[in-house]
Amino acid sequence: MRHRHFKKASESYTIMTELVLPNDTNTLNNLMGGRLLHLMDICSAIAAQKHSNRIVVTASVDNVSFRHPIKLGDVVTLEAKVSRAFNSSMEVHIVVHAENVPAGNKYKCNEAFYTFVAVDQLGNPITVPELEPETDDEKKLFEGAIRRRQVRLVLGGKMKPEDAEELRALFVTD
Amino acid sequence: MRHRHFKKASESYTIMTELVLPNDTNTLNNLMGGRLLHLMDICSAIAAQKHSNRIVVTASVDNVSFRHPIKLGDVVTLEAKVSRAFNSSMEVHIVVHAENVPAGNKYKCNEAFYTFVAVDQLGNPITVPELEPETDDEKKLFEGAIRRRQVRLVLGGKMKPEDAEELRALFVTD
Amino acid sequence: MRHRHFKKASESYTIMTELVLPNDTNTLNNLMGGRLLHLMDICSAIAAQKHSNRIVVTASVDNVSFRHPIKLGDVVTLEAKVSRAFNSSMEVHIVVHAENVPAGNKYKCNEAFYTFVAVDQLGNPITVPELEPETDDEKKLFEGAIRRRQVRLVLGGKMKPEDAEELRALFVTD
Amino acid sequence: MRHRHFKKASESYTIMTELVLPNDTNTLNNLMGGRLLHLMDICSAIAAQKHSNRIVVTASVDNVSFRHPIKLGDVVTLEAKVSRAFNSSMEVHIVVHAENVPAGNKYKCNEAFYTFVAVDQLGNPITVPELEPETDDEKKLFEGAIRRRQVRLVLGGKMKPEDAEELRALFVTD
Amino acid sequence: MRHRHFKKASESYTIMTELVLPNDTNTLNNLMGGRLLHLMDICSAIAAQKHSNRIVVTASVDNVSFRHPIKLGDVVTLEAKVSRAFNSSMEVHIVVHAENVPAGNKYKCNEAFYTFVAVDQLGNPITVPELEPETDDEKKLFEGAIRRRQVRLVLGGKMKPEDAEELRALFVTD
Amino acid sequence: MRHRHFKKASESYTIMTELVLPNDTNTLNNLMGGRLLHLMDICSAIAAQKHSNRIVVTASVDNVSFRHPIKLGDVVTLEAKVSRAFNSSMEVHIVVHAENVPAGNKYKCNEAFYTFVAVDQLGNPITVPELEPETDDEKKLFEGAIRRRQVRLVLGGKMKPEDAEELRALFVTD
Repeated sequence: MRHRHFKKASESYTIMTELVLPNDTNTLNNLMGGRLLHLMDICSAIAAQKHSNRIVVTASVDNVSFRHPIKLGDVVTLEAKVSRAFNSSMEVHIVVHAENVPAGNKYKCNEAFYTFVAVDQLGNPITVPELEPETDDEKKLFEGAIRRRQVRLVLGGKMKPEDAEELRALFVTD
Repeated sequence: MRHRHFKKASESYTIMTELVLPNDTNTLNNLMGGRLLHLMDICSAIAAQKHSNRIVVTASVDNVSFRHPIKLGDVVTLEAKVSRAFNSSMEVHIVVHAENVPAGNKYKCNEAFYTFVAVDQLGNPITVPELEPETDDEKKLFEGAIRRRQVRLVLGGKMKPEDAEELRALFVTD
Repeated sequence: MRHRHFKKASESYTIMTELVLPNDTNTLNNLMGGRLLHLMDICSAIAAQKHSNRIVVTASVDNVSFRHPIKLGDVVTLEAKVSRAFNSSMEVHIVVHAENVPAGNKYKCNEAFYTFVAVDQLGNPITVPELEPETDDEKKLFEGAIRRRQVRLVLGGKMKPEDAEELRALFVTD
Repeated sequence: MRHRHFKKASESYTIMTELVLPNDTNTLNNLMGGRLLHLMDICSAIAAQKHSNRIVVTASVDNVSFRHPIKLGDVVTLEAKVSRAFNSSMEVHIVVHAENVPAGNKYKCNEAFYTFVAVDQLGNPITVPELEPETDDEKKLFEGAIRRRQVRLVLGGKMKPEDAEELRALFVTD
Repeated sequence: MRHRHFKKASESYTIMTELVLPNDTNTLNNLMGGRLLHLMDICSAIAAQKHSNRIVVTASVDNVSFRHPIKLGDVVTLEAKVSRAFNSSMEVHIVVHAENVPAGNKYKCNEAFYTFVAVDQLGNPITVPELEPETDDEKKLFEGAIRRRQVRLVLGGKMKPEDAEELRALFVTD
Repeated sequence: MRHRHFKKASESYTIMTELVLPNDTNTLNNLMGGRLLHLMDICSAIAAQKHSNRIVVTASVDNVSFRHPIKLGDVVTLEAKVSRAFNSSMEVHIVVHAENVPAGNKYKCNEAFYTFVAVDQLGNPITVPELEPETDDEKKLFEGAIRRRQVRLVLGGKMKPEDAEELRALFVTD
C-alpha cells in the first residue's frame, strides 16, 4: 500500500510584487477590483502548483471584500500558502498588502481563499500530497478549512445546509 | 422632502462578449479563472454604473465556482443586471456562458454576485436609486439579496452569526 | 441534391460592451481610432462565426469615419449582425455607441461593414448558409449589400467600374 | 498676408516594424485583421503628426482588403507617408509588408488610406502645411486624393453622388 | 549638521513571482530576453523605491547574459536588494530563478545590477540613505560596487580608463 | 569545402517606431527603462533574424545607460544593424531617438549592443553568415566588436582579465 505523502505549508509559500499601472485603474486612479482578483488567482495558483507539482485549475474563490482603495503607482504584495489539501483539491490562503512606497504607509487590503484542483495533461483530477501545518496560524487555517469547505458546498448547491455540521454550529447555539 | 427614485433591473442590463485569446489561458489552453473574475468585474461594474449614473468601486465578490473549462478561441458571453440596491451599494447578478461557436455548443459556466459602492469624485459613498424588480426571476433575486448580504457581513466580520436572522433560518429548523 | 440552408440575421446578433482604458487613448484622452477598428473587427468576426459556425478571417473593411471623440472611462457598445452572405463570404453590419454613463448621454459614433470569409482548418474557403432578412432594416441592408460589394470589388481592382451596374446607377441618371 | 507653408511627403515618412505575437492571432495562428488595422492607424497617425507637428485624430479609414494571411512570428513592416493635405485634414498612404524572416519570403499584404485631422489642445481643427509631392509616385497619390476624398464624402453622406465630379467620370464615359 | 541616515540591505528586499504567458515568448516558446529585462527593471525599481522612499528612474543596467531558456508556463522568481547607495543613486543586485513547477527543477538563470536615481516630483535628483550591508554576501556586493561603478563610468564615457583605479588593478599586476 | 558567405550590415537594418502609451510610463509620466530595454530587444532581434535567416535568442545585453527621460505621447525610433558576427552569434548595434513631434525636438537617448545566437528548431546554435562592413561607421563598430566581446566574456566569468588583450590595452599604457 502506498501512503500519500505530506508537504509543509511553507513549501508552497509564494510572494508576488506588482506595481499598479495606468491600465489597471478606474477613472479615480484606483486599482480595479477585478484586476486584483486576477493577480490573486495567479499568485495562489502558483502556490497550489508548488504543493502539488501539477498543473492546477481554479475551482472556486470564496467571498472577497475590498476595503481600501489601492492607488496608481502603489506596490501590491501578495502572499499565498496552501492551507489544506483534500484529495485532488487544495485551499490556498492569500493575503494582500498595498504600499505607497514614497509615503511609506503599508496596509493590509485583502485576505481570501482560492481553491484549486490538480489535474493531469488530460484535465482529469489527480491526488495531491496532504498539507502538514506547522505554525499556530497554519493550524488555525487548517482547521477552519473544513467549515469553509462546507460553506462552498452549500453555496454551490452540492450540500444541504442541514448536513453542514461545522457550519451549522455557528448559528445554532443550543 | 425628496424621495429616492426607482430604476428597473432591465435598465442596468449589460452584455459583454469576449474572445478567449492566448494570453488569457494556462498551459492546458483553458481560460484562467482569474481572467474570468476580471471580466465579470468589468461587466458588472458597468451594470452598477448604469443603475447609479455614478463612478462605482468593487466592494465584494461572493463565492464563485468554476465548473467547466473554457477553451482558447471560445466566445464568452457575460450578462449582468443589478439585483438590489442598499443606500449606496448595489448587488449585481452576473451569468456567464461560453460557446465553441464552430462546434455550436453553448453552456452556462458561472453565476455570481458582485457588490459595488457608488462614489462621488472624492471617493465618498453616495445614495443610489432603489431597484424595482419586474420579472419573477428579478423578484427572486431581489428577495434573496437580504440573505446574501448577511452572508457577506458575517463572512466579513461585520455581523455576528446570531444576528443574521435570514441566514440563521437556513440552518435552524425548529 | 443538397440545398444550402438559411439563417436569420438575428441568429448572428452580437453585443460587445467595453470600457475605454488608459492604454486605449491618445494624449487628449480620446479612444484611438485604430483601437476601435480592432474592437469592431472582433465583434463582427464573432457575428460571422455565429452565422457560419466556422473559423472566419477578415476579408475587408469598408470606409469607416469617426465623428465623435470617445473619452477615457466611457462605455462603448458594439452591435453586429450578418447583413448578407455570398458563397463563402459574409458582410457584417456593425453599429457603435458610446456613453459617458455618469453623465447619462449616449450617442451613436460609428457604423461600418466588415466582410469575412469562412474557412476550414487548412484555411480554404467554405460555403456558408444564406442570410434571410426579416425586419425592414435587415431587408434594406440585405439589398444594399450588392452595391457595397461592387464598391469593394472596384476599389480592390477586381471589377471594372463599367461592370458595376448597381453602383453605376448612382452616378448615371439618364 | 501669411502664406501656408509646404512640407515634402518624405518629411512625414514613418516605418514601423512589428513582430506578430500570440495574442495578435486567431485560432489558425494568423494575425487578426483588426490588430493590423490598429497598427496601421498608429503608424499613419505618426506620419500625420510629423507633417503637422500637431496632435492628430483619426477621421476615417478607406476600404481596406486583406489578401494574404500573416502568420505568428512573422515580421510586419508598415510604411506611411502623407499623400495630400486639405486645410486641417491629411490623407496618409500606408503600405504593409509581411515577412517570414527565416524562410526569407517577403510580400506586400495591404495598402490603405487613413485620414487625420490636426487639432489643438481643446480638440479644435487647425490648419496644416500643404503637401508638396516630389517623386512620380507621390504625384500620382497626390492627384488621386481628390477622387478618394469624394468617395469618402459620398459614402459618409456629406456629398451627393452627382456632385462628385471626379468620381462620376469613372462611371460615365460619354 | 544633519547626518545622512543608514538603511539595511534587507529593508529593500523585494521578491516578484511571474508566470511565463504566451505573449512573453518567441516561436520556440521561450521567454524573450527583453521581457525578462523589463521584469528585472520593475523588481529592482521597487527595491530602490523601498530604500529611498522616493520615485526612482532607471539610470543604467550592467551587462546581462542569458544562459538558460525559460519556457512557456514556467514560474520566474526575481529577488532584488540594494547593494550600495551613492548620493542620489542606488545600485540594485537582482537574481533570477526559473522553475518548471510540475517537473520540480529550479535553476538560477540570471544575475544583474541595475542602477536607479531617486528624484523629486520635478525629476531632480535627491539624496538617499546610505546602505549598511550586514551579511557576508551583502558586504561583498557593497565592496564590488565601486569597481562596477567605474566600469559604468568608463563605458558611459564619463571617466577615463586610466582614472578607474579599482578597475585598472584587475588588468595591471605589477 | 564550403565557405561561409558574407552579408552586408545594411541588409539587417531595422527601424521600429513606437508611441509611448500610458502603461509604458511611471508616475512621472516617463517611459520606464525596462520597457525600453524590451523594445530594444525586439528591434535588435529582428535585425539578427534578417542577418541569419534563423530563429535567434538573446545571449546578452551590454551596459545600457538612460540619459534623457522620454515622455508619454513621445515617438520613439529604434534603429538596429548587425555590427559583427562570430560563428553562431551576432552583435547588434542599436540607437534610440525620442521625439515630441508637436514640439519638434528630436534627440538621441540611447545606444547599446545586444548579442544574439542563431538556433535551429531544437534550440541548438547554428553558424551564421559573416558580416561585411561597408561604411566608416560600420567598420569602426566591426573593429570595436572584439574588445566588447572580451568585456562580455570577462564580466560573464568566461575569460580571465589577463587574457583579454584588447581590453587590457585600454588600461595598461607602458
